[in-house]
Amino acid sequence: MKNNNGNGRLSKAPENWLDPGLAQAIQTHGFDEQRRQFLSKNFLLALAGTTLGADAMGAAEGDPNILSLPAHSTSLGRPVAQSGYGMPSSFETSVLRRESPGLTRTREASVSFTPLQSLFGIITPNGLHFERHHQGWHDIDPQNHRLMINGLVKTPKVYTLDDLMRLPHESRIHFLECGANTAMEWGHPTVPTVQYTHGMLSCAEYTGISLRTLLEDCGIDDRQARFILAEGADGASLSRTIPIEMAMDEVMVAWAMNGEMLRPENGYPLRLVVPGVQGVSWVKWLRRIEVGDQPYGTKDESVQYIDLMPDGSHRQYSWVQECKSVITSPSGGQVLLSPGRFNVTGLAWSGRGKIKRVDVSFDGGRNWRTARIDGPIHSKALTRFNIDWVWQGEEAILQSRAIDESGYVQPKINQLREVRGSRSIYHNNAIQSWHVTANGEMRNVQAY
Amino acid sequence: MKNNNGNGRLSKAPENWLDPGLAQAIQTHGFDEQRRQFLSKNFLLALAGTTLGADAMGAAEGDPNILSLPAHSTSLGRPVAQSGYGMPSSFETSVLRRESPGLTRTREASVSFTPLQSLFGIITPNGLHFERHHQGWHDIDPQNHRLMINGLVKTPKVYTLDDLMRLPHESRIHFLECGANTAMEWGHPTVPTVQYTHGMLSCAEYTGISLRTLLEDCGIDDRQARFILAEGADGASLSRTIPIEMAMDEVMVAWAMNGEMLRPENGYPLRLVVPGVQGVSWVKWLRRIEVGDQPYGTKDESVQYIDLMPDGSHRQYSWVQECKSVITSPSGGQVLLSPGRFNVTGLAWSGRGKIKRVDVSFDGGRNWRTARIDGPIHSKALTRFNIDWVWQGEEAILQSRAIDESGYVQPKINQLREVRGSRSIYHNNAIQSWHVTANGEMRNVQAY
Repeated sequence: MKNNNGNGRLSKAPENWLDPGLAQAIQTHGFDEQRRQFLSKNFLLALAGTTLGADAMGAAEGDPNILSLPAHSTSLGRPVAQSGYGMPSSFETSVLRRESPGLTRTREASVSFTPLQSLFGIITPNGLHFERHHQGWHDIDPQNHRLMINGLVKTPKVYTLDDLMRLPHESRIHFLECGANTAMEWGHPTVPTVQYTHGMLSCAEYTGISLRTLLEDCGIDDRQARFILAEGADGASLSRTIPIEMAMDEVMVAWAMNGEMLRPENGYPLRLVVPGVQGVSWVKWLRRIEVGDQPYGTKDESVQYIDLMPDGSHRQYSWVQECKSVITSPSGGQVLLSPGRFNVTGLAWSGRGKIKRVDVSFDGGRNWRTARIDGPIHSKALTRFNIDWVWQGEEAILQSRAIDESGYVQPKINQLREVRGSRSIYHNNAIQSWHVTANGEMRNVQAY
Repeated sequence: MKNNNGNGRLSKAPENWLDPGLAQAIQTHGFDEQRRQFLSKNFLLALAGTTLGADAMGAAEGDPNILSLPAHSTSLGRPVAQSGYGMPSSFETSVLRRESPGLTRTREASVSFTPLQSLFGIITPNGLHFERHHQGWHDIDPQNHRLMINGLVKTPKVYTLDDLMRLPHESRIHFLECGANTAMEWGHPTVPTVQYTHGMLSCAEYTGISLRTLLEDCGIDDRQARFILAEGADGASLSRTIPIEMAMDEVMVAWAMNGEMLRPENGYPLRLVVPGVQGVSWVKWLRRIEVGDQPYGTKDESVQYIDLMPDGSHRQYSWVQECKSVITSPSGGQVLLSPGRFNVTGLAWSGRGKIKRVDVSFDGGRNWRTARIDGPIHSKALTRFNIDWVWQGEEAILQSRAIDESGYVQPKINQLREVRGSRSIYHNNAIQSWHVTANGEMRNVQAY
């Protein structure tokens, strides 16, 4: 288990998972930047008279940063709202969405991952929301965009955005996870950080109208309707079947996320919000809903997003994202620079409802302690957990295990493989393990 | 009451409240842009065979936008994450923070207002969070920033940001309102839109550590401690007194808002979060907390943020923001282009806890209906309300009235003046009125 070169995996064998042409880029702007950032967040006070660990906190003797007033405390600052739309600090420029080089053959049908290791709380800033496009994204003029509802309805209708905004609004906070999130962890761990293992994940407050309201406005045929088809206006015409019980329950046609209009890469001006369900069903640039009496079996649900089972069959419609969690900091690629106290933090979520409890292990699953949930708990939303840890320089394996209100317990990877076999790509909700070496380096491992 | 030039106030008399040099700018980029935007959100389907109102929704005969596939549905889109940090759609460039020209003499000690009329739900995007600076803002290097705690403690300490992040994190959603929000409404209404009447208001998820944890870490003297002083690292050294009961309850030292590190103009890297209390107490660029046995009476609490009372006295410490609400859309400066159904939406909040109920009147307060609250309800957080309204072309006065869990009812402006007199600047939580003319133009009025 001892491996002092745990986070050297990337530089030792980049050709294994990196497009060689981009390997240098990710070493400079990805992995190393993340490491640098964690170093900066955990450097010891390099001061005379201090000792290691918790005692070091609050020691200030001789610290020029407290003894001398900095320039900004004695000068005029910058004026308000120069751009009118603000941006993060110049010291946070490494907190970015990133592509996983070599993962896809084009940059239009590709993925950019959310930097979970650098985020806090449950809200994902819109500027850092992951992307997964099947044929690239567009910035659609909302005045020319339409939503059509047809099929088993009394009156097929076409709505403008303005029509929709006159109907009753609602707002809810929900997680959004791509069905392929953590896909690479079905095999031997190859990606170094939580940005790549779990970064197709987000949480936002969505505002729009209930799909039920629209279907009723068109006079849905309650006796025949069994499924709907949702179709996007992108070049892929991405389409997904949704059961009518779900469509008439919590599904929304949304135009806003986190207070403002949707971002273009997240479906502006209209996106279907399907709480608890994999991201591909949250159709972006939504242009059509068709009501039918059977599943549609479109290309996007017959070839992709299916689970190959051990007996050779495939599971076609995996609607719900099962209960899952991950420790986001400290995590793979980061380095614990000194022993002492740490706040270990992470995210838990379930497509079945609320998170009930999160346990954390520091010894690869032999012993578990219950984490604190000191933030908002919403149904089908990310839930932030925290737990104190005093690291004394020992080797450790950090894991989190979530339990949702249905009683479902997040499985270990070998438990999941017993049911799902080894040919899966999608829907991996196994417990994630981060190995800590004696010198504090952290890497992605599988521990049973 | 009839006034067909209601929203011509700005162009008729800009010199009354605008810096003449900036009048043209706001006409182009402020008021007119807001009007244009609302027009675009409410234009009728100009199609053969449609009629006015709700029946017009969903009519599509001959609409080229549904009959023909747009270019973006038959082409390759843009690649993922070109910048790594995303921005709003190019069609949303008028949704910006804005200064109120002439309100302040410098742009460093100034205000930029949040465009509430264009927002949804309860979360304020960080890029649109209002600003109020006393001596401008700085982008402080977090590695050199320190937080000192001194005064009536056993061990004065100095913390780095890294020290703080090792302590237990917590995350909570809270509103933030400047004590001077709605200040100009104490007199005759002069500003045209909700951005200027109520736009020093926001709501975000904050992450940090409990101030209580820090004060206990320093060994606070429980017997003598009565107040704390919070001090910022800006050129103003902005400082505020906070009672010890409040400081030991919900107050946080926060480094993150809405999932990411604080923005520089909002206090990066450390800000005090004082739930329910006016914004000036949420000290930005926080560098020092002193524990004392009496109020400090600093310049920022002796000269500013005081309430001049009818008897000539002044009320110095108004900690809590009382219960308040406002209709954000449709609102002043917007135009209802056609009769029919509308979703009237707004925000309610209280420094005393949760919002219990919001009522809406369409006739200046004679009749009230209870609005729907179809979103998250958190204590001391913005709460979104919605209500259906069928406008038939009549004159109307729209008002909202919030009631919090303590039973407090938001007052009318004349009720507030009975208690507070007419010399106040701060802490105006009166009911806001928006007048709708028969041609649908909306303007800011006072109605009793």
